[in-house]
Amino acid sequence: MSFVSSLKNAWQQANSLLCVGLDPDPARFPTALAGRKDSIFAFCSAIADATAQYACAFKPQIAYFASQRAEDQLEALIDHIHTRHPRVPVILDAKRGDIGSTAEHYAREVFERYRADAVTVSPYMGFDSIEPYLTYPDRGVIVLCRTSNLGGSDLQSLGISESNDAARPSERLYERVARLAAERWNSTGELGLVVGATFPQELARVRQITGDMPLLVPGIGAQGGDIDASVDAGATANGTGMMVNSSRAILYASRDDDFAQAAANAARETRDALRAAISRHRSV
Amino acid sequence: MSFVSSLKNAWQQANSLLCVGLDPDPARFPTALAGRKDSIFAFCSAIADATAQYACAFKPQIAYFASQRAEDQLEALIDHIHTRHPRVPVILDAKRGDIGSTAEHYAREVFERYRADAVTVSPYMGFDSIEPYLTYPDRGVIVLCRTSNLGGSDLQSLGISESNDAARPSERLYERVARLAAERWNSTGELGLVVGATFPQELARVRQITGDMPLLVPGIGAQGGDIDASVDAGATANGTGMMVNSSRAILYASRDDDFAQAAANAARETRDALRAAISRHRSV
Repeated sequence: MSFVSSLKNAWQQANSLLCVGLDPDPARFPTALAGRKDSIFAFCSAIADATAQYACAFKPQIAYFASQRAEDQLEALIDHIHTRHPRVPVILDAKRGDIGSTAEHYAREVFERYRADAVTVSPYMGFDSIEPYLTYPDRGVIVLCRTSNLGGSDLQSLGISESNDAARPSERLYERVARLAAERWNSTGELGLVVGATFPQELARVRQITGDMPLLVPGIGAQGGDIDASVDAGATANGTGMMVNSSRAILYASRDDDFAQAAANAARETRDALRAAISRHRSV
Repeated sequence: MSFVSSLKNAWQQANSLLCVGLDPDPARFPTALAGRKDSIFAFCSAIADATAQYACAFKPQIAYFASQRAEDQLEALIDHIHTRHPRVPVILDAKRGDIGSTAEHYAREVFERYRADAVTVSPYMGFDSIEPYLTYPDRGVIVLCRTSNLGGSDLQSLGISESNDAARPSERLYERVARLAAERWNSTGELGLVVGATFPQELARVRQITGDMPLLVPGIGAQGGDIDASVDAGATANGTGMMVNSSRAILYASRDDDFAQAAANAARETRDALRAAISRHRSV
């Protein structure tokens, strides 16, 4: 099954828009895991097992594994999720951006070595930095569009002047990326976009440009994004279309032996808050 | 010694602007290396030993190692270069782009795990995706600006409209990135930019904006960039300022047992062509 098909199934079957981000930082692990050689795998697989029923996707962030020399544990983790929770697609958050044979090697890394269902990529180098991933026609490619951080505005919100087409008013850089993704780059139907929760009006604008394209939405919780505003801005007509990411609030809900149960509770609460927001949104 | 200091020394001592790109593709290795478990390290270290005297920098591309599950060989390669060729700085080409604690983990990966002297990064997420690398004040951070590929124009050459400052004429996105890097982001003095050889006029524009900032210039050889035009556009007043990258033409100069000698010859020829271009440029 393709990434987008899996995602649609997960939205329906789990009735959840929650993406659980797996950003394992050993300095914040429960003391019970200290000293274990496979502590990253042990921690993340316990979190995955505890939260899978509340999630539409898992999103491991590769930097947390690479900085710890733990690529083998990332392979084992994704294999574990595929085996135990085959309903839940895995997005490898790697924000790759390169061209030609280099991009082919990155695609091989993410889709063959790690067997991820989707990957995040940067649009700065243009279509030929996206294209090599599209040769895996069932895998998802999620392009950075409008990110939730302060510096996101340094480039993404700049106005673009070069259109002489009076029928097309000037647009901002993130709007151009959304339009390129929706109109020109989506040859497989498996593209998505990253749009932060901290700019609901811009999230709404991306939704308007892209139809029902899946949006990966970081920035709720610690970064200050509001769940209701994000759902109003980003949900599709059928109340799906979003993977709303939460990482730290779930992973580090407790540092004691009950960390997995605490993570499950935090995931359930976020899923429920998203469900309530969808209900309100659809009743408007 | 800091990255930029090492680079300046290498420019002077080796009298070379050549950066040797290490993009190891086992499918193109000499038959003598087939079947060796450490063939990637064996190949790259032989190339490094053969070409170090002609180079101002080495640039391993991480995708080629990651797709082969060869992170350990990348660690060993960079260690080998630091030990045998301490004069030649190592740029890890990874084009990272992320923020906050994720970027901190990427910085730890590249500067602590791999002990690279510099890293390539993407500007799409803005200054807070650059800043975590600047906490390593002696390491280089080389920001994508104007890349040599066709799709580079999808975003990088777009005109920016939002300046209402009549004193500042409208600029293109890559010019904005160059200006941000030169005027606002370079807190350590260790920033550089990636500017392709395929657009000499834009290379000249970036040189004009950035003073004597080091420029990493891919795109000569296979991609069609011209050495003389690139040097005229990108060299500083003292005939340095550029790391002109060549990968495949050097790495795969021969598939026979003489591959290292063939690589040395190709590297020497490219260095000499760059020297000749600099001589012509300075005599104009």
